[in-house]
Amino acid sequence: MKPKKFGEVHTVWNGKSDNYNRMPKSDELELNPDAAYLHFTSNETIQGIEFFEEPASGNVPLVCDASSDFLSRPIDVTPYGLIYAGAQKNVGPSGMAVVIIRDDMIARSPENLPALLDYKLMAENDSLYNTPPTFGIYMVSLVTEWLLEDIGGLDKMEAINRKKVGLLYDAIDQSDGYYRGHSLPESRSLMNVSFRLPNEELEKKFISEATASGLDGLKGHRSVGGCRASLYNAMPVEGVETLCSFMREFQQNNS
Amino acid sequence: MKPKKFGEVHTVWNGKSDNYNRMPKSDELELNPDAAYLHFTSNETIQGIEFFEEPASGNVPLVCDASSDFLSRPIDVTPYGLIYAGAQKNVGPSGMAVVIIRDDMIARSPENLPALLDYKLMAENDSLYNTPPTFGIYMVSLVTEWLLEDIGGLDKMEAINRKKVGLLYDAIDQSDGYYRGHSLPESRSLMNVSFRLPNEELEKKFISEATASGLDGLKGHRSVGGCRASLYNAMPVEGVETLCSFMREFQQNNS
Repeated sequence: MKPKKFGEVHTVWNGKSDNYNRMPKSDELELNPDAAYLHFTSNETIQGIEFFEEPASGNVPLVCDASSDFLSRPIDVTPYGLIYAGAQKNVGPSGMAVVIIRDDMIARSPENLPALLDYKLMAENDSLYNTPPTFGIYMVSLVTEWLLEDIGGLDKMEAINRKKVGLLYDAIDQSDGYYRGHSLPESRSLMNVSFRLPNEELEKKFISEATASGLDGLKGHRSVGGCRASLYNAMPVEGVETLCSFMREFQQNNS
Repeated sequence: MKPKKFGEVHTVWNGKSDNYNRMPKSDELELNPDAAYLHFTSNETIQGIEFFEEPASGNVPLVCDASSDFLSRPIDVTPYGLIYAGAQKNVGPSGMAVVIIRDDMIARSPENLPALLDYKLMAENDSLYNTPPTFGIYMVSLVTEWLLEDIGGLDKMEAINRKKVGLLYDAIDQSDGYYRGHSLPESRSLMNVSFRLPNEELEKKFISEATASGLDGLKGHRSVGGCRASLYNAMPVEGVETLCSFMREFQQNNS
């Protein structure tokens, strides 16, 4: 653990006992009503679990790291005090972040924050306190144009993402246990699907043959192993269909 | 003034009484031999002044913001504890920085720094603690290839930059005082040339007519007014020649 640098941290829930296979329900959270904010991460990319409803935090402002599902589906920003999202999954190139912050949260910025972490300073300077990452911002404008004009908005993007993840979980669920999804159905991420094969040897073979046939990036995160398919906005439905066919074929050849 | 956030600051020299028209000589600095480091900015873009020798700091490590002249000429890194440079002038796209830090400086990183400002953490993780700005890094590789292979190295780049700035200061110095350079000759920046015309009305006309003829970006920084030409690596000699011709013509037509 790193030393705590700004304020005290109180953990309201820990998914370790379930091996991080689900997000908590609001009534499981040990909330502190005097907390400055409640922080959660809307989508967890390693295990592949996602919140589909915001945690109920009462009068405590919600702060969300939405880095890995921002712009994958519509969200109602009303309950949030602050949403921040690294651009690199669905928004634009790596090296920048989008921040949506409520005025009363800006007003509460502590005075002792370094300039780089001071949202009040950023807001007062229209996000131009430093030279901004201009190329990245331009790319974000192209991505959002694409979402609005080519895709037809975030409702449509969500429908496409649900179709993709549905195809993949169908392939997993219909494999008679050959493939085993990590996350529980109610928390299944739309963005990341982590799954196992009967043993590690088969997993290695699966990843290696998949890569050879053009299906790259299926290795699970180094901290958990297994396999993982990421289905960010840029992955087309056809890519998931190809993966599902490959999975059925691999199972037939390796059972 | 912002509140001081990390450590105490002792100002060793202040150029205000000379209207920031030169860099100090080492014997003018009121050094504190117990300082953790001596910070300087190697090139000042607003007034157009540059250090051509590092300040003599004794045993105190030198820390340099080289954002606006890094890769414009060779530097000997030996006397430095830390060099940092925003990429956006000569190195690559905005939104990233290059850092060169000595091992003993890394070891001295305080424990209470936020991760984003913690060079020790960056070094321990091979600059991959966060998802890095990959597109920008790729662009930097193209720029450095260009410097090495097309230009022929930083010695050659310096010669080109000296030629450019020489042409422009010749045009200024040979204008019988019509154009007046801001910085004293010994501190003249290779990157930024700030100059005035006989009055503000002529400056406005100069900038407007220059822009109309394709010479854009000649307005001085909003904090000082006047005119400023930036001659970063990407500006070719031909661009400066065109500016000099325009200046001579403008003077003939407006004297």
